[in-house]
Amino acid sequence: MSLPVTDSGSRPRGGERSDPTGLHRVLDGGADGRRVLPQAARRLDTRREIWPDEVRVRIETLNLDAASFRQLESKHTVDGRHDGDAVRREVLEIVADRGKMQNPVTGSGGMLIGTVEEVGPESPLGLAVGDRIATLVSLSLTPLVIEDRLERWDGTSERVPTDGYAILFGRSIAARIPDDLPPALSLSVMDVCGAPALTARVVRQYDAPVVAVIGGAGKSGSLSLAAAGREGASRTIGVVPHETEAALLREAGLADDVVIADARDPVALRDAVAAAGGPADITVVCVDVPGCEGGAILATAERGTVIFFSMATSFSAAALGAEGVAADVTMLVGNGYTPGHAAYAMDLLRTHDGVRRLFERRL
Amino acid sequence: MSLPVTDSGSRPRGGERSDPTGLHRVLDGGADGRRVLPQAARRLDTRREIWPDEVRVRIETLNLDAASFRQLESKHTVDGRHDGDAVRREVLEIVADRGKMQNPVTGSGGMLIGTVEEVGPESPLGLAVGDRIATLVSLSLTPLVIEDRLERWDGTSERVPTDGYAILFGRSIAARIPDDLPPALSLSVMDVCGAPALTARVVRQYDAPVVAVIGGAGKSGSLSLAAAGREGASRTIGVVPHETEAALLREAGLADDVVIADARDPVALRDAVAAAGGPADITVVCVDVPGCEGGAILATAERGTVIFFSMATSFSAAALGAEGVAADVTMLVGNGYTPGHAAYAMDLLRTHDGVRRLFERRL
Repeated sequence: MSLPVTDSGSRPRGGERSDPTGLHRVLDGGADGRRVLPQAARRLDTRREIWPDEVRVRIETLNLDAASFRQLESKHTVDGRHDGDAVRREVLEIVADRGKMQNPVTGSGGMLIGTVEEVGPESPLGLAVGDRIATLVSLSLTPLVIEDRLERWDGTSERVPTDGYAILFGRSIAARIPDDLPPALSLSVMDVCGAPALTARVVRQYDAPVVAVIGGAGKSGSLSLAAAGREGASRTIGVVPHETEAALLREAGLADDVVIADARDPVALRDAVAAAGGPADITVVCVDVPGCEGGAILATAERGTVIFFSMATSFSAAALGAEGVAADVTMLVGNGYTPGHAAYAMDLLRTHDGVRRLFERRL
Repeated sequence: MSLPVTDSGSRPRGGERSDPTGLHRVLDGGADGRRVLPQAARRLDTRREIWPDEVRVRIETLNLDAASFRQLESKHTVDGRHDGDAVRREVLEIVADRGKMQNPVTGSGGMLIGTVEEVGPESPLGLAVGDRIATLVSLSLTPLVIEDRLERWDGTSERVPTDGYAILFGRSIAARIPDDLPPALSLSVMDVCGAPALTARVVRQYDAPVVAVIGGAGKSGSLSLAAAGREGASRTIGVVPHETEAALLREAGLADDVVIADARDPVALRDAVAAAGGPADITVVCVDVPGCEGGAILATAERGTVIFFSMATSFSAAALGAEGVAADVTMLVGNGYTPGHAAYAMDLLRTHDGVRRLFERRL
């Protein structure tokens, strides 16, 4: 790839001050003229000159969000034949139109890998030119320009090799890709690194708690089990939907108990966790299926905490569900960001053979 | 009303053991045969004999949920003419069909006032026959039989005088209606009593926090401000949408600062709270409009807590919003139940003239 010489550190034309959230690159207001954040915006300003607190990254690979890619793939499959060219054209159109890769149907984006090309003098991210990084904020809020027409991508996989650039804001999140691990493995861990970090924080607020992880054999679930064990859980319970997953999780050795239950059946989940040494002081929901709120609440002890990491969680089902059974439980919206989350998750992977085996299986 | 003599304490025919969540009265499974909780059920068993841990209540008034009544009212308004008879017929049909008052469109219910008629020997609710109570769990999960064809209700108001009975489960919640306050005032407080109790608990976890309440002049908002002041907030900020509400809240004397901002505009909300002494250590969202997640997150300090009480909250907007701006904030799903919540809220009303004036204005 060839890079034009840049005016390093130059202040962009126009004079508007930057905002750490990226607000200065939002080109549209809401329907009623309110100013929205980059994620909610229809269109972002992709000018290549950076504001003093920004970073520009030369892109190597985009990783489209799984839900987004599935939507594009099924839209462009006719009579069982997948039209990769049509998918590629649509991604190009979305990025050209919106200035970011945000699927208009799913609203989701993905992440990217690249190399730091320019760092503004006021950037707080601690990055240096030449660092190879992955972004941990969504592509759905990241200004993006594709410069190679995606000619190296056939439109049949979420992994998109490309050339172009992206902009990180003052409050964006990026992590250096470690040298000692395969990049695909690192990315796979970084993708879910919010879950173990928040689980660890909550476990430390209790004294030797019982921790149940719903979806314990998955990526975020296995890391959360490992985090609970490290931070002092007295007992860890992994809940999985069927025997195949149970065997995987038992072999990984991450849970004191592995139980099979349908997480959408509140009473079955409650009883399964109780039989394994529950109720849980902390229940972590890591399965992306709707309808797990009631079971998670019933599986949790009074004054316990439920952490919802599943994007399929319904706010009202959780709120009304707890009230409906008079459950005195704390319910957390799983924030994907906790300081140090990527390093913490990478360390769990490096020190737990069981976690690493589970992740390598899923690559 | 005339009550038939009951077999006090009798165990219902059928022999199934009761479950504190009311599961034993669910007549349908989910579409795939899973057993659902009473709130999610299509139909409940309304037999009048109680299980040993249940309570039967003679109903005096139903208070339909505002969203439910609005839906019924607009459905049965033709050419600007509201057909109260049609609303009444539909409520009768719903209750007869489902065994509970749950609006099939909105999913919501309401609450009821009545007098305890029979208490099972194993009921943990602490109620006695003759107690006048309000239920604090939704009608959408409460077995209900209407015995007077709603003949005293004209279908034009949420308040439904009636005769009939309802069943409370082992884990239901009910509160005695105080003698020293008008019943309508007590009900109005009980309706939102989860908010001040949870706010109080979170405030006690911090050392003299700054607390911002979005929607501070409303029912749950004003109680939350009063709770924050009582539990040791160093500064309380009430955010309201316009000058009328601001004047009300200033007159009530519940907030150190009253600021006007559109809570759906993230940057405007952040800046308004900052100018009033923020960012907030604790932000309480009490306005029932969508799109307040981003602003609430930006208005909150690092390591702060956002409590979402609004049923208009979007789980994914909150989760992705915090991650998108790298905000290290704890986000709570506002659980409507905290032990002692009704008594706590009534006490705030009794001791704060400002709270009482605000509530009396809204009756």
